[in-house]
Amino acid sequence: MADEKSRGSDQELAERPARRLAGKDLLGIQGLSVSDIEIILDTAESFKEVSTREIKKVPTLRGKTIINFFFEASTRTRTSFEIAAKRLSADAVNISTSGSSLVKGETLIDTAKNLEAMNPDCIVLRHSAAGAPHLLARLMRVPVINAGDGANEHPTQALLDMFTVREKKGKLAGLKVAIAGDVLHSRVARSNIYGFTKVGAEVHLTGPPTMKPPEVEGLGVQWHNSLRELIPEMDVIMMLRIQLERQGGGFFPTLREYSRFFGLNLEALKKAKPDVLIMHPGPMNRGVEISPEVADGPYSVILEQVTNGVAVRMALLYLLVGGVE
Amino acid sequence: MADEKSRGSDQELAERPARRLAGKDLLGIQGLSVSDIEIILDTAESFKEVSTREIKKVPTLRGKTIINFFFEASTRTRTSFEIAAKRLSADAVNISTSGSSLVKGETLIDTAKNLEAMNPDCIVLRHSAAGAPHLLARLMRVPVINAGDGANEHPTQALLDMFTVREKKGKLAGLKVAIAGDVLHSRVARSNIYGFTKVGAEVHLTGPPTMKPPEVEGLGVQWHNSLRELIPEMDVIMMLRIQLERQGGGFFPTLREYSRFFGLNLEALKKAKPDVLIMHPGPMNRGVEISPEVADGPYSVILEQVTNGVAVRMALLYLLVGGVE
Amino acid sequence: MADEKSRGSDQELAERPARRLAGKDLLGIQGLSVSDIEIILDTAESFKEVSTREIKKVPTLRGKTIINFFFEASTRTRTSFEIAAKRLSADAVNISTSGSSLVKGETLIDTAKNLEAMNPDCIVLRHSAAGAPHLLARLMRVPVINAGDGANEHPTQALLDMFTVREKKGKLAGLKVAIAGDVLHSRVARSNIYGFTKVGAEVHLTGPPTMKPPEVEGLGVQWHNSLRELIPEMDVIMMLRIQLERQGGGFFPTLREYSRFFGLNLEALKKAKPDVLIMHPGPMNRGVEISPEVADGPYSVILEQVTNGVAVRMALLYLLVGGVE
Repeated sequence: MADEKSRGSDQELAERPARRLAGKDLLGIQGLSVSDIEIILDTAESFKEVSTREIKKVPTLRGKTIINFFFEASTRTRTSFEIAAKRLSADAVNISTSGSSLVKGETLIDTAKNLEAMNPDCIVLRHSAAGAPHLLARLMRVPVINAGDGANEHPTQALLDMFTVREKKGKLAGLKVAIAGDVLHSRVARSNIYGFTKVGAEVHLTGPPTMKPPEVEGLGVQWHNSLRELIPEMDVIMMLRIQLERQGGGFFPTLREYSRFFGLNLEALKKAKPDVLIMHPGPMNRGVEISPEVADGPYSVILEQVTNGVAVRMALLYLLVGGVE
Repeated sequence: MADEKSRGSDQELAERPARRLAGKDLLGIQGLSVSDIEIILDTAESFKEVSTREIKKVPTLRGKTIINFFFEASTRTRTSFEIAAKRLSADAVNISTSGSSLVKGETLIDTAKNLEAMNPDCIVLRHSAAGAPHLLARLMRVPVINAGDGANEHPTQALLDMFTVREKKGKLAGLKVAIAGDVLHSRVARSNIYGFTKVGAEVHLTGPPTMKPPEVEGLGVQWHNSLRELIPEMDVIMMLRIQLERQGGGFFPTLREYSRFFGLNLEALKKAKPDVLIMHPGPMNRGVEISPEVADGPYSVILEQVTNGVAVRMALLYLLVGGVE
Repeated sequence: MADEKSRGSDQELAERPARRLAGKDLLGIQGLSVSDIEIILDTAESFKEVSTREIKKVPTLRGKTIINFFFEASTRTRTSFEIAAKRLSADAVNISTSGSSLVKGETLIDTAKNLEAMNPDCIVLRHSAAGAPHLLARLMRVPVINAGDGANEHPTQALLDMFTVREKKGKLAGLKVAIAGDVLHSRVARSNIYGFTKVGAEVHLTGPPTMKPPEVEGLGVQWHNSLRELIPEMDVIMMLRIQLERQGGGFFPTLREYSRFFGLNLEALKKAKPDVLIMHPGPMNRGVEISPEVADGPYSVILEQVTNGVAVRMALLYLLVGGVE
């Protein structure tokens, strides 16, 4: 988190640890400390209950403006942030590329500075260019949340994944977590690798050899050539979305081949631990990286991930934007 | 309405009839009983006044989340639902295809299940495939409202049409209602046929022979080859939008021909009852199925239909989602 | 402002001058009196502070519905209106062309009449056709705000520009204001010419001879062939956006040429007054009509224009829609 946006004295921070994040950015899991992660997950826990009330709304961020600035199509992430903001009573303003003056050739920075001039309290940015949120954050006083930047990071996804695992398993440290599929191009994988290793889990990667990231050794994780051999040991198996448009790019022969070797089906799950968790960041390609039976089966926590996404984003908006106390 | 989502004991229902619809779906007029329709229209009557107040807002659905999930372009229906939700103090979240992860190949069902996982209180769906809302409703706990599905039904349109007629005429039973134009492809026609026949009106259809639905006899309505001959008897004449893209599809020779035989103009209206109501679901093709003089004339209740649409949708959201009492 | 929407007796108006605008349209600066402009700027001054509060929200327009009806892509203007509405506690509903039933061939008027039938309290319209808001305003009871119509006017931009200059200089009368660039095609230029001349400023225009409007003499302003020669005298220099798509249309030889003769850079600014204000309506083409050093330099009030845009639009919504008192 960018230090220059910090506020509050050290003593205050010691007394009210949540204030540590106030005014800062969330650019990636890489920049978070373990205690940052714990604060976020603990706060999310307390917000999760709000979405189950008859009146799903707290006044925490009344009079705050949250801008969802999305340069890539997204249903779940944008909707999740919008719902999170509204359940905190904030005003949510959505901007997507199509309606943006970026079509008129303005730079990302100018557009963002313009938005900042309207006194928002937080900008949530999704962009196809890795590093776009970092660029913005350096130039802006207002907190920036990275909602996915190119193939770099998708930190709110990793936080909701960690939240889901911690809720189900009661801990994160010591767990064995597999991340399987197109690791090379996946920002979800990257953020989860950073996150789960930070909190002391053991991260195992697998996928086609063409989808192995070059820096895997430096990340403190292990690469495996076979998903099948990995399954029996794992507490958590996270299947990545295969981007169908990569087909024909030489990354894998055919979808059928991909599915056979790197897809998760009931047969492959037979040797799994009885309390294994199956995760997927969505959107799923049913029948490709995951079979419908597994996606909808008893080990799957895929929809709970989505539910927890709202809680985690409420927590982040609360912690970064700072509410009425 | 789907029974499995019912709640409340029979005695409660007898005492508070409005609770009968709580938690249910609105998929079509076909599935509604006459008393369901009456409850909806009566409730709409009490909500209509809200939109005429200085402060057009009631706290009824505060803290509820309504998702408008639109797979087809729409101004009036989406806006009407959004305004209805906001006047009830609900949070409205709009999702349209272009911004949807459906572009990434996810199935409708997965997207909907994901939205449901964010704990909305109602999903309003417009989709080009007949039956899409029914599919969703079977799989989801949350009430689904059909905002138009292919050529099947557009039940909220029919409810607002019945509301408008009842308000003007003081009754529905016994009235003679003509529905004229492209009956074959019209979900508006289908829902109104079901609705007006249920409440005891006499429904007459007319249009080019190529646009006569095959099942017309089974619907309890009568087909006529001439709009002109039908006019003198009718209490209500509902003109359907001709979809200009059908031109050249062999359904009618030219727009001029269509207009001459199946368009409504002042000349044709001369023989109408002095208190006839002229309706159109919009958007109108002025000069094709309806002349500007008729659309804007004294018999037209076309804009009142739109006004009543907000009231009917407020009523539905209130009845299905259930508010604070 | 259209007189027929006026309300309140003359005496009331004398006592509470702000009521003069209640219920009227804002179609252009041309139709405003000097005291209308003063009322708007004074009101904006009192609203500006709201956006700097911890809780950036006042209940002024609670229960009002503002429709942002945009037929051209826009980030800043639409977002500015949306934020203005929400900070006044109004419900903002956005409609953009892509999602509009205008794709189905409905006329602008029918769409607008339909929106009006849903009882909104104000319609904000941006349209590529000059005069579109005037057409709407004639036909509708609800106030219409012109958010830019073709090459005609962009009155809210001129009001925020005048607001910014008045705030910085303490006055408007007697100031020398340059407007430089593609004056011919610029609705921003046109509205500012009307505005600054009305309030007694001296307006100077400059740009390529191909971009000189034919009616310049009748506007009470002076045309200059050289920006450089104009600079030393000016209190305010407003650079217009050059529309890159005009390149090749014969309006100027190359971007490099344009930039050299009609762009503003540090070199050209050397002879400027020490308290000159540099303005730009955005989006900027950095390095074309304005150099990055000037855009981000000490004389630039470009981002303050954006901040003031929210205040001016809050003032207009308040004055036209009329709030709870």
